[in-house]
This record gives sequence, structure tokens and C-alpha cells, in this order.
Amino acid sequence: MARPEVDVAALVAAATEGQPRAVARLISLVEDRSASLREVSAALTPLAGRAHIVGITGSPGVGKSTSTSALVTALRAQGRRVGVLAVDPTSPFSGGALLGDRVRMQDHALDDGVFIRSMASRGHLGGLSATAPQALRVLDAAGCDVVLVETVGVGQSEVEIAGLADTTIVLLAPGMGDGIQAAKAGILEIGDVFVVNKADRDGAQATRRELRSVIAMTDRADGSWTPPIQLTTATTGEGVDEVVDAITAHREHLDVSGQLTRRRLARIRREIEGLALAEVRARFDHLSGDARLDTLADQVLAGATDPFAAADTLVETL
Amino acid sequence: MARPEVDVAALVAAATEGQPRAVARLISLVEDRSASLREVSAALTPLAGRAHIVGITGSPGVGKSTSTSALVTALRAQGRRVGVLAVDPTSPFSGGALLGDRVRMQDHALDDGVFIRSMASRGHLGGLSATAPQALRVLDAAGCDVVLVETVGVGQSEVEIAGLADTTIVLLAPGMGDGIQAAKAGILEIGDVFVVNKADRDGAQATRRELRSVIAMTDRADGSWTPPIQLTTATTGEGVDEVVDAITAHREHLDVSGQLTRRRLARIRREIEGLALAEVRARFDHLSGDARLDTLADQVLAGATDPFAAADTLVETL
Repeated sequence: MARPEVDVAALVAAATEGQPRAVARLISLVEDRSASLREVSAALTPLAGRAHIVGITGSPGVGKSTSTSALVTALRAQGRRVGVLAVDPTSPFSGGALLGDRVRMQDHALDDGVFIRSMASRGHLGGLSATAPQALRVLDAAGCDVVLVETVGVGQSEVEIAGLADTTIVLLAPGMGDGIQAAKAGILEIGDVFVVNKADRDGAQATRRELRSVIAMTDRADGSWTPPIQLTTATTGEGVDEVVDAITAHREHLDVSGQLTRRRLARIRREIEGLALAEVRARFDHLSGDARLDTLADQVLAGATDPFAAADTLVETL
Repeated sequence: MARPEVDVAALVAAATEGQPRAVARLISLVEDRSASLREVSAALTPLAGRAHIVGITGSPGVGKSTSTSALVTALRAQGRRVGVLAVDPTSPFSGGALLGDRVRMQDHALDDGVFIRSMASRGHLGGLSATAPQALRVLDAAGCDVVLVETVGVGQSEVEIAGLADTTIVLLAPGMGDGIQAAKAGILEIGDVFVVNKADRDGAQATRRELRSVIAMTDRADGSWTPPIQLTTATTGEGVDEVVDAITAHREHLDVSGQLTRRRLARIRREIEGLALAEVRARFDHLSGDARLDTLADQVLAGATDPFAAADTLVETL
């Protein structure tokens, strides 16, 4: 491989010192799947693993971005460094594009203890799951104590988000029929902390009660953790400190129970499998005009072999 | 591999003698991806290659199934054995399910020179392109001189159909704005023979003129063939013999120009690639719990290697 033009080592060193431009540049490199991607990944992997990755998910209208912003404020008040990765599965635009209309996030724009990054996943090979782990490693290596991963817009990536996170917050709001919606979307299984936002509205307590009884009936992968349900009013910050306490408690539970390592290993296995499959697919994409494939096709046309045997041969020779 | 219960050799022998039940059984075996699939494919591949595969495509409402039926009648009048593969990309149901409401096809139900088979592709791994080539080989080996492949229902499989066929018929109807629709769907590039059906309606000649001028401006892969445009009224059979003449002429053109072999080799290459990719994906699916993957994930978590290097290792060991 030709030496990439980018000085990855210098960028990584600058990022670990918390320089925002180096962090942004590294995320761009992994997101663009640049020639430096492998080098960036190799440099970052040993530096990652310290940050607590927290996914935030919920239906449109529950106040996801307001809640994310309120969580950033609460975490900063505790002196923790925070990263935010806002993923838009429906947009092909990345970078600062999304942040313009997310006024609340701009409260944190001048805080050098906060890194905010939006990321598009549409049109990216392998979608969210292919690129986000690398971007999370950048924010992790940059010294973030907590990284919040949030989906922007409507999408079915709730479960994908949970797959990236150590702790998943599921947001609901009263009176949106969210109890049933949530059950349908399978997000009851993935929530480690539940938040009923817009608690100043009618029906918040009823939603909490409904949630509690549904959760009690749900089979959960980690039976040793009972997910708390916190009421918040993200616009005023009411209840948000308690959400921070809940995610901190969940992180401790993960540590003590050994779940943290198990979750992260499962995540890494999926990542390796995804990258390996992408690599194989790339090799196939380069096959057109390949003499081996031509020879096999000739043999099938002549009836000397069949397509399955030819495919086996092809797999063996790759 | 355990010996499959099915006596493939006997089935293939019966199919080549034109026994309808053997043909139907073999298509079921390839469609269900049964344990015998490879054996069936190996037995059929040397027997295939004689039939002229003709794809029929067009927007809903242009009279596709009526045209297919009329073509069967015209081909039978010439004494040719005909296969029909009706593919429904939106239905999970196969077999006779679709034929019940296709009254015209029942005209041919008692003709032992006609094999009619519907095939679902939804939910099938790899969709149409994975299973259809095998089913076409069955009909080919069963002695069909021409096999018509038609999509049933609305779908975006026009181009896929063309990829399966030696000759592709594109059907249009007057006054449906099909000229522009066709250009958008890219079917002008894939049509070898164009048919303006419902020619008894106003605007048929205008549609033909419009088509002719648009085709003249279209870049075509095979520049040595000018696609004819035939007017038909499939309900009465008017013009259908001329369509048969046109596809016969195209087949001769393919033979003489060497395009037939080139098209078929390209098709086989895609088939081999698809099967090889499916095979690799199947191997990955069996990886969960695999010790090699676990070891690699441990190493990534420990920072001893990175996910890309781990993926490379995984690909090498498969």
C-alpha cells in the first residue's frame, strides 16, 4: 500500500491531547473510508476502551436531541468530558450539516470538554454499523469519559444503536401511545435505562406504570439488571441528573457483573465479521475480467462443471 | 454430505423425456434450495443451453400476461415446445398459486408441449437472480425450445429479468406515458424487441414513433442490432406472430454475431459470483461461537490488534 499523505500518528497524538480539529479530521478519515482508515484504526484501537458508550434512542417527538443536550450539561457539571455522535441514517450529509438546526447543541459548541459530531450513514457501505465503531474509537481515544450516540431523524436503527453501546437509554413521552409502540419495536429488550420525557405533561406517571408492568414481563438478556424508569423534563433539566446517576449505576453493574467485557466482545465480533464480509465482497467486485472467473464460466457453459462447483472453486482460490 | 432421499438421476431422466411432474419437482427442488440442489444443478448443467430464453418486461397494465399467453399460442402453432417462468418478486408463494387467477394461461394447461411455472422470489436468499437460473436450466433440459420469463406484479426486476434472458421483450401500451417511464426505468437499454400492445387504442402509432426516436438516441450495448418495434393486440393475437419472428431473428443475430455466447458467459459469471458470495456469507453465519473469531475479538479488546487486521486474518482462515 502506498504511504498515505496523512500523518496519522501526528493526528492521533493531537486527538489524544483533545484537539478538536484533530478529532474532527480523524472522524472524517474513518467516515470517508480513506486510504488511511486501516492505519487510523490500528493506531486508535489500543487507545480505546475507556469511554462509556451510551446510546440514546426513541421515537420522533420524544425530545431526543433536547435530552441529549441536557445530558451533556449534566455530565459537564460533573466535570466529565463528553462526546456526542449524532447519526442520521436517512441523510447522505455529514459533518456540521445537521448541527445548524440543532440549536440546543450549540450551547456546547464553545465548551472544549465536549466533542459533537454528526454522521450520515445512508449510502455508506455497511451503514451505521460499519463506520460508527471507528468514530466511537476516535472520541474514546480523545479522552471522552462518556460518548452519547443518538440517531437523528426517523429510522429503524434503534437496535443497531444498542449494538454499539454499553448502556442504552430508551426515551418515551406520555400520551403518544409509546408503550405499545415500544413493545412493537423491540426496544423494551434493549433499554438499560428508560426515560419518560416531557414529564410535565399529563399521563407521565401512567406511562411509567405501564412501562414498568410491560418491562416486568419482558425477557431480558441481562436478567440481573432491572432497568430504572426516570421522569424528566429535558427542556428545564428536571430529572436529568438522576438519568446520569442511572447510567453511571448501569456502567458499574456492567463492570462488576462482567457484562461490560461480554458486551464489548460481542460488539467487536460483529465488527470483525462485518469487515471480513466487506473485504470478501470487495474481492468479488474486483473479479470482473478475472481470468479464473472467465475460465470457470467457460467450463459451466460447456457443461464441464456446474455453477455450484465453480463457485466452490472460486471461493477456494480467493 | 448425507445421500439425499431424492433420486435426482431418475427425476432428470424423466424431465428430459418431458414428463411434467418431474419438471415441476425439479423446479421445486431448486427453488426450495433443498439438499439435492447441487446434485440437480450438476446433472442439469450439461443438458442445458439449447433453449432460447426470452424475458418479457413492462409496466403493470400493458398486458404482460395476455401477451405471454398469446406468444405461447403463436410458438405452439410453429410446433415449438414452450416453457413459461412467471416470477413474482413480491409474493412468498410459489407453485400453482399464481396461476389460478391467470385465466388465459389455463388455455395451455392441457397442452403437453407447454410447461408453466410460477416462482416467488421474496424471501429467497439472493432473490430472483439466485434461483431463476436453476429453474431455467430445468425447463431448458426438459426440451423447451423457448422459455418465456415474465415478472408478475409490480417490481423493479426489469433489469434482473434482462440479465437472465438471451432476448428481452419490452412491452408498452399507448397513452400511458410509458415512453418517458421507460426511459426513466432504463428499459430502453435492455430491450431487444419492443412491443406496443393494445394497438387498437388511440395513440399506438404515436407511441411507436416516440419510441423509435428515443431508441435512436440511446446508447446500446449491442450496437449492431436495431430493436424492432411491433404493434400487437394480444387479446386477439394481432401482430403476435411478428413478435415471434422478431425474437427468432434476434436469436439468429445473437448466434451469428457471437453475442449469444458472450451474453451467456456474462450470465454464468454473475451466477458463479452470486453463489460464491452466498457460500462465503453462509460460512460467516456459522462463525458465532467459532473459537477463531473469539480469539480475534479478545485481541482487539486488548488492543493487541485492530479490527481490520483481525478481519483480514479471519478471511485468510476461512
